Amino acid sequence: MNIAELDTPAALLDETLVDRAIARMQSRMNALGVRLRPHVKTAKCIEVARRQRAAGAVGITVSTLKEAEAFFAAGFDDILYAVGMAPQRVALARSLVERGCRLKLTVDSLAAARAVIEGLPGAQVLIEIDVDQHRAGVKPESDELITIGRALHERGALAGVMTHCGAAYECRGEAALVEMAEQERALCVRAATRLREAGLPCATVSVGSTPTALFARHLDGVTEVRAGVYVFYDLVMAGLGVCRVEDIALSVLTTVIGHQRDKGWVLVDAGWMAMSRDRGTAAQPVDQGYGLVCDERGVPLEGWIVNQANQEHGIVEHRGGIAASGIDVASRFPIGTRLRVLPNHACATAAQHGRYAVVQGSEVKHEWPRFSGW
Amino acid sequence: MNIAELDTPAALLDETLVDRAIARMQSRMNALGVRLRPHVKTAKCIEVARRQRAAGAVGITVSTLKEAEAFFAAGFDDILYAVGMAPQRVALARSLVERGCRLKLTVDSLAAARAVIEGLPGAQVLIEIDVDQHRAGVKPESDELITIGRALHERGALAGVMTHCGAAYECRGEAALVEMAEQERALCVRAATRLREAGLPCATVSVGSTPTALFARHLDGVTEVRAGVYVFYDLVMAGLGVCRVEDIALSVLTTVIGHQRDKGWVLVDAGWMAMSRDRGTAAQPVDQGYGLVCDERGVPLEGWIVNQANQEHGIVEHRGGIAASGIDVASRFPIGTRLRVLPNHACATAAQHGRYAVVQGSEVKHEWPRFSGW
Repeated sequence: MNIAELDTPAALLDETLVDRAIARMQSRMNALGVRLRPHVKTAKCIEVARRQRAAGAVGITVSTLKEAEAFFAAGFDDILYAVGMAPQRVALARSLVERGCRLKLTVDSLAAARAVIEGLPGAQVLIEIDVDQHRAGVKPESDELITIGRALHERGALAGVMTHCGAAYECRGEAALVEMAEQERALCVRAATRLREAGLPCATVSVGSTPTALFARHLDGVTEVRAGVYVFYDLVMAGLGVCRVEDIALSVLTTVIGHQRDKGWVLVDAGWMAMSRDRGTAAQPVDQGYGLVCDERGVPLEGWIVNQANQEHGIVEHRGGIAASGIDVASRFPIGTRLRVLPNHACATAAQHGRYAVVQGSEVKHEWPRFSGW
Repeated sequence: MNIAELDTPAALLDETLVDRAIARMQSRMNALGVRLRPHVKTAKCIEVARRQRAAGAVGITVSTLKEAEAFFAAGFDDILYAVGMAPQRVALARSLVERGCRLKLTVDSLAAARAVIEGLPGAQVLIEIDVDQHRAGVKPESDELITIGRALHERGALAGVMTHCGAAYECRGEAALVEMAEQERALCVRAATRLREAGLPCATVSVGSTPTALFARHLDGVTEVRAGVYVFYDLVMAGLGVCRVEDIALSVLTTVIGHQRDKGWVLVDAGWMAMSRDRGTAAQPVDQGYGLVCDERGVPLEGWIVNQANQEHGIVEHRGGIAASGIDVASRFPIGTRLRVLPNHACATAAQHGRYAVVQGSEVKHEWPRFSGW
């Protein structure tokens, strides 16, 4: 099948770029001497995870127990659920463990730790560490860390520590990213050291995000890295300097459906339903609107972005307005023209689609399903 | 089933509020003497549309041909596809028409009009009118309107005109909304008049959005109104003064999974995956973050909003920060506490979910599926 036969909007994956991204991250983790446990929340696609495993990944990370169920059913049995455990979900987790899933859970409070050890004998639990004041986790120097660690260890449930340095997404420049990666590593390792000094085991030291994984100079003391968005990359990652625009594997195929010639607007059928409402590049030096416009083959059209989005309408404009483009949009992009749009945030854009059309050049090689929901 | 048994995050619909919203809009349209053709893109749910029809709605509006297919299969045969027609989709439309669907298409260019009349004998087409410089459509005074009208009429395809006044979402205050509703009506009726003066038929004059529908003083010359979000309402509509916060029928049920006590943060399992990335209230006088927090029964907790969102994490804070709330969040919202979050934009939030739990009080009365994709 040729991409010309696809109805739009459609999520496209460039197979070569996905494979290259997987190889790049695995090779970097191998060089740093750590295991890679990819976060499958970006793709939510069994085929993508199989390729990550084939390249050397050990286990997966999930953001919902629905992902855990789906991947366990597909033969992935080493799963870290990286969102703080809600007491009401312990029964679901137990059901997975009883069926043979090597599920690891995450807590950052004594209340959650107690709910897990009381409801799930044999639980394996990581304590979440706050390394960047960004979201969840206990401080590496806190008494709470030791209290939670002790409560878990008494029931044989303490598997280690984990952190996610979300602040890395706000870094500017290589030096800041290198520093943030070291902060993530050092503070998570410090938490592990404190547990061990208190006589508690800490086999796993799990860190990660795509930016810190790729900018870490060394990962001494870390046993595994979790990263997700690297598998597709996106404009936020390109804006951070983590990848190049031409590395982005996910795009949305769209069709021109109209114009406002006097305004230099090209209306396309990729609105926020197809792109998501994510405006992650708005806080970066180069704001890419709702996405960067490419031709049907995926070659970026310098200066053209999806500047506004309604539910099923995108408004493509030149970044500098009609004065900067100086062309008649109806002639340049006739109705029926097919374009591709690179997304701000691959996790958010992919989530708007139920399947990926996997392409090599203009040929659709595979259709991979993607799941969603809870 | 009680809502306490639902896994979170989950989309809840308050059945009483949905029924009340449907009755309110239908009653207003009856009073104005126009047909109501609800836009089903908000709910994408057969059961919701059946209730709209039972209340008196005539036909439906869709934003994708997938919606048209799904609703036609469920017995809705009078369908307006309100997004500019792409030439590549004419075959899909023809397939619906050949199976008996009374499908109306929308164009705003001669190119699209030609693609439709060449590919779909017996097509019924509305010309989209630009009444607010907001998105698509031809100007009511343009030569293009007559050119397109004539091309359609030569093939018996000219059904009328339609518009959507998206600028209404940016209005502030009742006077501005009343004025915008009148602008939408007057300019669309003017386009119809020009077609008729040129000797062309214009049976349908279709306008609408939830704000203009509810603020129009009269709709002389209009034959039907399209509105979508009124069926659930949302915080953007409440911010506009179109509804009250207590009218909002859609909410997301969520569970507290952690805290950062020193910051006054409550971590919940409703992140942007459950709420969407929509920040529609950011441009309004009262910014509601990613949503307004209520207790499990749906009573708003004054001042508490989802202030930040990651994929599966929401950060609930008091609007004024920890100083304003002055309370210990871990005591006020213990781990496992269930909350409801009212959304900025019902269309976007609903789109993140595959089903609705329809509730009356704390009882789950129905589970209604919702579809997505293209």
